[in-house]
Amino acid sequence: MVKTIEWKEEYVRILDQTKLPFETVYIDLFSIEEVFQAIQQLKIRGAPAIGIVAAYGLLLAFQTVEDISANDFFDLLNEKINYLNSARPTAVNLNWALQHVKTELENSNQFNFDIIRNRLLNIAIRIHEDDRHRCDRISQFGQEILGNNSRILTHCNTGALATGGVGTALGVIHKAHELEKKIKVFATESRPVLQGARLTVWELENSKIPVTLICDSAAAWLIKQQEVDLVLLGADRIAADGSTANKIGTYNLAILANYHKIPFYVAAPFSTFDSSIKDGQKIPIEHRNADEVRKIFNTFPITVEEVDCWNPAFDITPPDLISGIITEEGVIYPPYELNLKKVKINQTKT
Amino acid sequence: MVKTIEWKEEYVRILDQTKLPFETVYIDLFSIEEVFQAIQQLKIRGAPAIGIVAAYGLLLAFQTVEDISANDFFDLLNEKINYLNSARPTAVNLNWALQHVKTELENSNQFNFDIIRNRLLNIAIRIHEDDRHRCDRISQFGQEILGNNSRILTHCNTGALATGGVGTALGVIHKAHELEKKIKVFATESRPVLQGARLTVWELENSKIPVTLICDSAAAWLIKQQEVDLVLLGADRIAADGSTANKIGTYNLAILANYHKIPFYVAAPFSTFDSSIKDGQKIPIEHRNADEVRKIFNTFPITVEEVDCWNPAFDITPPDLISGIITEEGVIYPPYELNLKKVKINQTKT
Repeated sequence: MVKTIEWKEEYVRILDQTKLPFETVYIDLFSIEEVFQAIQQLKIRGAPAIGIVAAYGLLLAFQTVEDISANDFFDLLNEKINYLNSARPTAVNLNWALQHVKTELENSNQFNFDIIRNRLLNIAIRIHEDDRHRCDRISQFGQEILGNNSRILTHCNTGALATGGVGTALGVIHKAHELEKKIKVFATESRPVLQGARLTVWELENSKIPVTLICDSAAAWLIKQQEVDLVLLGADRIAADGSTANKIGTYNLAILANYHKIPFYVAAPFSTFDSSIKDGQKIPIEHRNADEVRKIFNTFPITVEEVDCWNPAFDITPPDLISGIITEEGVIYPPYELNLKKVKINQTKT
Repeated sequence: MVKTIEWKEEYVRILDQTKLPFETVYIDLFSIEEVFQAIQQLKIRGAPAIGIVAAYGLLLAFQTVEDISANDFFDLLNEKINYLNSARPTAVNLNWALQHVKTELENSNQFNFDIIRNRLLNIAIRIHEDDRHRCDRISQFGQEILGNNSRILTHCNTGALATGGVGTALGVIHKAHELEKKIKVFATESRPVLQGARLTVWELENSKIPVTLICDSAAAWLIKQQEVDLVLLGADRIAADGSTANKIGTYNLAILANYHKIPFYVAAPFSTFDSSIKDGQKIPIEHRNADEVRKIFNTFPITVEEVDCWNPAFDITPPDLISGIITEEGVIYPPYELNLKKVKINQTKT
């Protein structure tokens, strides 16, 4: 499996996803600022992967700090957390990971910088490792909704490149292939940044899973032609009622699935759930630079220079369009508000 | 207004639309084969514009023919018509124009090649001129559905570049601007060939009409954000029941408009109607080369080499998703089968 994120003693090594599938370039991030930039420039992307690299980023921020009181440390920690959080506002896994680190440190009795650093490292490694396990569990539970001979329409990239493991939606697809279910994947190109064309196609071809690429605009006609049995994709943040923020175009596909009466599934770990947000309206949507639309790879112009563009990176799908959410605790079905609470109670119990 | 197609005594000059908006290059077509290639390679596109240039193409085919019987002439004419028709199977205006030429020649009493050529030229010029008038009438009738302060979502390109006049859907928009209605246009980029990003944005910016470019995948979220009052676009072929073949992505937008309860209008001249086809199922859909998806401008790769692609150039929108069709005889509302017949009866009467 591809090494998307790797801790290397003094720095974090990531696979630069802006170069894929044309070049396999690894870059080494030595500071929190480099981590911030890598996240913002989409060199690392995918909600779970961003959370992991951010946890390593916090560690990097404290690599050389020594002479500082516990109070000052927590002030600085908050500052660094806010800084990383500002890199991409929609995905909640980033904040989840950072708050996770903070909570663990606050519960620590000892304030010694070697111990702190050691704990920071252990927490980051655990977040990373846990995500791998979560992906495995999601992939397994997802088999419940993925029959033999399924033709799946997916969007953006939700595989090994987006997570610490085999992926969320793409993890389910990989697992089905491993179990020798005969499946076929249609990948949307996912403009503007083309994560589907560049990353999902690359991952699926590497795994010898049959994949056909389509333009985003062709999805409706593809479904109408009865070439698709279900839509399966990931999430960047899920509100308490099941409202799901995900790559721009997801809401579009949910409406199409609803119109054509095929199921629409989301796959995401619990780190993607934000129970502090009641419904979709409060999820902040990141708007990105117009040049992502105006130019392919920020380089090749496709339109008139300086034309006004509207470029939200995400949209929000309401819960009534979602057939089920595949998590590491099983597939959750509507009503989400109720059923999510049940799973959380079970989690606390175990 | 831009000179999309111009007859120049011995050849037809077209603006090469594959070069826009970066370069304004005119190319001169001296033979039917050059016309065929220009149509197939999308140097000239837009259903009405294709019909016009095809009429000139027939003229070019007979420029040097002399010693041939009337029977042989009509055999050759049929052959040339079939040849041009095969360039792009979905748009019906091409066939409409060619059959128009044929019918007129069949009704001719004299068989003399100078006269034939003269008639061919006059017919082509009339088709060209008529389209200009039809665009004007469509633009005027379209005002009925376009209020002041309208925010319009359009798809692909339906302007002066796509027709012999000011355009169909974009003609309506231009007219509204001329009438000083305060309007705002959202243009989809229209992957794979990016006619929205390249051509519609260029036309609207030239006319100082406010335009914002979006990725195709962003349309649903844009409508949800209540930024759009109506969808307005063109057609390549309309069946007897109102089923409309148009640029891939049109059916998608129709479903979105329906879901969000905003109107969805088609603008097209009668040359786009094909009463020989009862409903959408019989409209042939052109599938184009995978490299249109794999590479931007057939040049810059965006995905893994050789990946399988599904690339229909058009889709079909069922009549129940269409609020009205703006024609040169007025806006036609459902039920289309009945109301289209009424308009045709009126046309025959006058």
